[in-house]
Amino acid sequence: MSMNSFGHLFRVTTWGESHGPAIGATVDGCPPNVPLEPAMLQQWLDKRKPGQNKYTTQRQEADLVEIMSGVFEGKTTGTPIQLMIRNTDQRSKDYSDIMEKFRPGHADITYWQKYGIRDYRGGGRSSARETASRVAAGGVAREVLTAMVPGLSITGCMVQMGPHKVDRDNWDWDQIAQNPFWTPDAQAATDWAAYLDGLRKSGNSVGAVVEVVARGVPAGLGAPVYNKIDTDIAAAMMSINAVKGVEIGAGMGAAELTGEDNADEIFMGPNGPEFSSNHAGGILGGISTGQDIICRFAVKPTSSILKTRQTITKSGEAAEIITKGRHDPCVGIRAVPVGEAMMACVLLDHLLLHRGQVGGNQGVIG
Amino acid sequence: MSMNSFGHLFRVTTWGESHGPAIGATVDGCPPNVPLEPAMLQQWLDKRKPGQNKYTTQRQEADLVEIMSGVFEGKTTGTPIQLMIRNTDQRSKDYSDIMEKFRPGHADITYWQKYGIRDYRGGGRSSARETASRVAAGGVAREVLTAMVPGLSITGCMVQMGPHKVDRDNWDWDQIAQNPFWTPDAQAATDWAAYLDGLRKSGNSVGAVVEVVARGVPAGLGAPVYNKIDTDIAAAMMSINAVKGVEIGAGMGAAELTGEDNADEIFMGPNGPEFSSNHAGGILGGISTGQDIICRFAVKPTSSILKTRQTITKSGEAAEIITKGRHDPCVGIRAVPVGEAMMACVLLDHLLLHRGQVGGNQGVIG
Amino acid sequence: MSMNSFGHLFRVTTWGESHGPAIGATVDGCPPNVPLEPAMLQQWLDKRKPGQNKYTTQRQEADLVEIMSGVFEGKTTGTPIQLMIRNTDQRSKDYSDIMEKFRPGHADITYWQKYGIRDYRGGGRSSARETASRVAAGGVAREVLTAMVPGLSITGCMVQMGPHKVDRDNWDWDQIAQNPFWTPDAQAATDWAAYLDGLRKSGNSVGAVVEVVARGVPAGLGAPVYNKIDTDIAAAMMSINAVKGVEIGAGMGAAELTGEDNADEIFMGPNGPEFSSNHAGGILGGISTGQDIICRFAVKPTSSILKTRQTITKSGEAAEIITKGRHDPCVGIRAVPVGEAMMACVLLDHLLLHRGQVGGNQGVIG
Amino acid sequence: MSMNSFGHLFRVTTWGESHGPAIGATVDGCPPNVPLEPAMLQQWLDKRKPGQNKYTTQRQEADLVEIMSGVFEGKTTGTPIQLMIRNTDQRSKDYSDIMEKFRPGHADITYWQKYGIRDYRGGGRSSARETASRVAAGGVAREVLTAMVPGLSITGCMVQMGPHKVDRDNWDWDQIAQNPFWTPDAQAATDWAAYLDGLRKSGNSVGAVVEVVARGVPAGLGAPVYNKIDTDIAAAMMSINAVKGVEIGAGMGAAELTGEDNADEIFMGPNGPEFSSNHAGGILGGISTGQDIICRFAVKPTSSILKTRQTITKSGEAAEIITKGRHDPCVGIRAVPVGEAMMACVLLDHLLLHRGQVGGNQGVIG
Repeated sequence: MSMNSFGHLFRVTTWGESHGPAIGATVDGCPPNVPLEPAMLQQWLDKRKPGQNKYTTQRQEADLVEIMSGVFEGKTTGTPIQLMIRNTDQRSKDYSDIMEKFRPGHADITYWQKYGIRDYRGGGRSSARETASRVAAGGVAREVLTAMVPGLSITGCMVQMGPHKVDRDNWDWDQIAQNPFWTPDAQAATDWAAYLDGLRKSGNSVGAVVEVVARGVPAGLGAPVYNKIDTDIAAAMMSINAVKGVEIGAGMGAAELTGEDNADEIFMGPNGPEFSSNHAGGILGGISTGQDIICRFAVKPTSSILKTRQTITKSGEAAEIITKGRHDPCVGIRAVPVGEAMMACVLLDHLLLHRGQVGGNQGVIG
Repeated sequence: MSMNSFGHLFRVTTWGESHGPAIGATVDGCPPNVPLEPAMLQQWLDKRKPGQNKYTTQRQEADLVEIMSGVFEGKTTGTPIQLMIRNTDQRSKDYSDIMEKFRPGHADITYWQKYGIRDYRGGGRSSARETASRVAAGGVAREVLTAMVPGLSITGCMVQMGPHKVDRDNWDWDQIAQNPFWTPDAQAATDWAAYLDGLRKSGNSVGAVVEVVARGVPAGLGAPVYNKIDTDIAAAMMSINAVKGVEIGAGMGAAELTGEDNADEIFMGPNGPEFSSNHAGGILGGISTGQDIICRFAVKPTSSILKTRQTITKSGEAAEIITKGRHDPCVGIRAVPVGEAMMACVLLDHLLLHRGQVGGNQGVIG
Repeated sequence: MSMNSFGHLFRVTTWGESHGPAIGATVDGCPPNVPLEPAMLQQWLDKRKPGQNKYTTQRQEADLVEIMSGVFEGKTTGTPIQLMIRNTDQRSKDYSDIMEKFRPGHADITYWQKYGIRDYRGGGRSSARETASRVAAGGVAREVLTAMVPGLSITGCMVQMGPHKVDRDNWDWDQIAQNPFWTPDAQAATDWAAYLDGLRKSGNSVGAVVEVVARGVPAGLGAPVYNKIDTDIAAAMMSINAVKGVEIGAGMGAAELTGEDNADEIFMGPNGPEFSSNHAGGILGGISTGQDIICRFAVKPTSSILKTRQTITKSGEAAEIITKGRHDPCVGIRAVPVGEAMMACVLLDHLLLHRGQVGGNQGVIG
Repeated sequence: MSMNSFGHLFRVTTWGESHGPAIGATVDGCPPNVPLEPAMLQQWLDKRKPGQNKYTTQRQEADLVEIMSGVFEGKTTGTPIQLMIRNTDQRSKDYSDIMEKFRPGHADITYWQKYGIRDYRGGGRSSARETASRVAAGGVAREVLTAMVPGLSITGCMVQMGPHKVDRDNWDWDQIAQNPFWTPDAQAATDWAAYLDGLRKSGNSVGAVVEVVARGVPAGLGAPVYNKIDTDIAAAMMSINAVKGVEIGAGMGAAELTGEDNADEIFMGPNGPEFSSNHAGGILGGISTGQDIICRFAVKPTSSILKTRQTITKSGEAAEIITKGRHDPCVGIRAVPVGEAMMACVLLDHLLLHRGQVGGNQGVIG
């Protein structure tokens, strides 16, 4: 019942604050004998790393991950893997303003009320910096998944920035890595660039919707009730900073459908059951169907903006605040690799849980 | 790491299947000395009970809850509370059709693949019947909350049926208990009645959105990262059968907002901080702010409909299926008390966790 | 983090108090498709059942176990198995004495201080009656072990009553079921009968040591540190009422050995490694070796005796107390099947954990 | 369900292997605002540190602990505390012997069978080095206990080396820190010095019994069944490398007592209940009584000895082995601060659990 952990058998505990010496993740329960080297994790951290273009924070962090334990001669040993990322870009600056005032939309006020202490130099545990630890841990999960389930892939992308959604007719998986927004719609990438540049220059920010798709997930992962795989995906995504909504398959839109429209019909294909559609998002009754698992989550706009906002001080006085600093105009962009990492952790965890309880699927079709 | 439990310190494990002798909930970690009698739980079960009007399934279940342990002379003892609800309306009928065929949109196919065994007479653990156990457990949580936090209230309601949303200008809390849809908008209740009657007669079903609001929640519950109160709310709601999306505050709509629009400004009120708006849904950085906690979730349409659907049999043959039986045309209606119950459990759990780690809020404002 | 549960993947939560309507166990995480019928559990409950001879309490309980869920057509479904045992022998009597006075050696005083409420008609959760639930759950574990690991056996026996130890040269496995003390030493059974009869008639009681041996356990279960199989065995046994010490292999006596005497030498046998001795009790570095797993635990004497003892009342007044009632002169006797049940639960849990993380042993010898 | 964690609300996860770059502990759930500096932890690590005299291993480790997170301006923040200890004394030497052969009494053989990979340069996670992480984490628990329960103290000592027990009539608390064996009996210290020197010179080793006493523990911590405080103490101590037995109060000796001798009589003292004796070891029915909590555990002799032993190789060939290296002739000595640390962690965890569920003792006596 750790407050900073997620997962059951594949269990990740993250630690560290934005302005301390380092952050990291303790990864427990990893299967042994899986090849693992820092470069395998670094590729995902580089994807999340700030300062890569003008659409993300200009904070410069190398985000170099070190494997401190759990790996011997390039393979996992089955013991805890400690991943450490040193904080390198901590500017000395004048914090007096945010030390005494609560930034609207931030955890400052609740953090203070609860704990009576917080590192006012940054968001502490609430900083988006914490997500680097998730990405590192997710990299471990990806390597194990690769070893255990060939053909499984996890891809995240942005499908909405502010009010602007992608056109799903333009969907091109190869496009995702070609633009700074990780979007599959080349036209959206162009449009969003102009839109976000305007917001950034005006000192404003905007929200986004991220979609994470897992392909090649075997049927049978999950359970009918609390240990539903969608329960754990919802928890994993909602646990990311700034996320305010999570959807599986048809998501909130399922409310608008009739039973006739919603239920995916079933057919027999050459390799097992196939479905006429995927409103279920790859999950029926909490258990994977073998279709793509599809999850979306909404990321609220960065609350640190160059606009004057009304707030109060610790002593309860009215005050105005402008949050200067190096913040993301659309933090949803950098949430893409984070969502992928969380999906990887959940899938591996359920793969191990399924193997533990059931050993492998017990029911045969056909 | 129980697969059928939720909660940390206030921990509920549900058990039982729709066609077995009984279902129930084992409630562990309940504080002692709280008055508890069956009638306190029965009121909520009656709200969820089927067969009360033509808009819900005609299955007749008394849903009488028995307290088997954990209560002595009308008060909780601090030991496990076993709540049992006997199944009473199990018609003998011909199950040969659903025994061999998988119902589209149901857990039948995944359940079979995973376990290789399932009680084909009903949905087993995937049956909506499981939620009666949650409502009973939630009733316990409500009584403890009443004892520990006077003034705290939890109210669920339907805010959308199919494509039809309530008009929030018509919002009237007192209206909720006055109509069969638990909606705060009297006009919507009238409109939905006609709409749902049409669907029901045509053998179809429809989805819905349920909103659960907790008022009077103290600031300080939750934690910045994985043990965020919104993480646990998301998990709790997504764990309910048929739920496909969960939102906190602005929810998926947060994606459309700018930082300027989204961040709720802070003012000092007579009893502590107040906010200009509540896009945060009462939670900042995973910790409650003292504002209303607002959660919404989408319930997909019942998959059991009187429409012919394409499917396959266990032996992989193509087949058609019509799911006869006594099903809900809009199962979202009965999800209202279930959502309330889950919210009650999460809030109590976090109240105990907060007391455990921190003892009480450490930071003072003003 | 349930306070009344044990196990990780195979997880048991017990509930119920000695003077309520029933007690039971909620068994979660059980693999599917394992044959299970009440009679398979009843055999173990009958072994623990009181009133079978003059050496155990004369309380008459049928201890009939009902399977309320999780089994369909005689096989486990992989969902929670609810086991219920109704309390049938609750005599109405005058409880005024023990209602106001704390019985020395009992949980009365601590229970009262902590919770401020307790069912004074019996020991509540502290009653040895709770162990019936464990025996039922252990019966489920045994059936799954039988299905998964042919040849695995678990046998408990008494090896010491008061100061009288068995003579290990007299050890005869077949003798265990032949005497009321479950001891493998026929001579000890005779001697103890006279000894215990004397104690019983004088209104006194005595402690005992129980040994539980698991044969045929595969190598590889457990983990090097906290999830050591011996950690979980120690916790499982110490969680039984009245247990004050737990030993693995050489146990407390390991302190007296030199390194030369203690370390079991290794040889290659026809079916894998063999050892010159078993001081390790079948566990090295927290992981099973394939040798017999040997555990012993000490059960203190029943505190309810017909001797006048000094105590205090709830109001802090000095008082004398004699605990009348139907108590066991040597409760260690009935702890034998309880210890077996706990061993079964721990072994199955670790079998599932091992399969989950590792899939099966990765290292080959020879 | 982390395999390398212990504790519920105060939860410690250790990581790292003896021959990797570092080891450490991730401490989650710590209350905020408790003063914490490295020196507060270092004092306990120094007590456990090897190489301090000829009775412990000559491995030279500075064992300097670094606090990587969770502390701000000298106080805990309520977020995860990462404690890191770099490994500094890793000699390059020829490992070919222990790479291929299994050392009797070591985890080598089981580790290999389970995982199929192990760092043959040392014991990996099974190394006694792992206990440094526990001592660091225990140091945090001690500081919190000091802040929350003034007057609570935890003292460990050795009460038996090989067959030689202390004379309890010689017990002197102040003597414990005055000799290299942490024993309260000055005469024993003298005798053991000669005894152990002889064993050491002959290349042999010996076992020991460690006693840990917690004074000033408030009544009311724990629970009647699985969450018994003695359950968690047993698990905590048995999880330490080389421990083979754990006792509470009268321990295994409780088996020899009659009910009349065992049950501690109760009297009313000026500050609450007092007892005529403490066979219960400060715990009744799993809940603390307010008396001293007394625990003992047996540590087996170091298996790494300079004696020729029979073993096998990975390929199953018979072989002889002498384990050279810098090992402890009586590893029980260095287990003393480890046992103290585990006790501190368990007590703090139960203090938080008690506060969480119950808020504070509900029952008044007198």
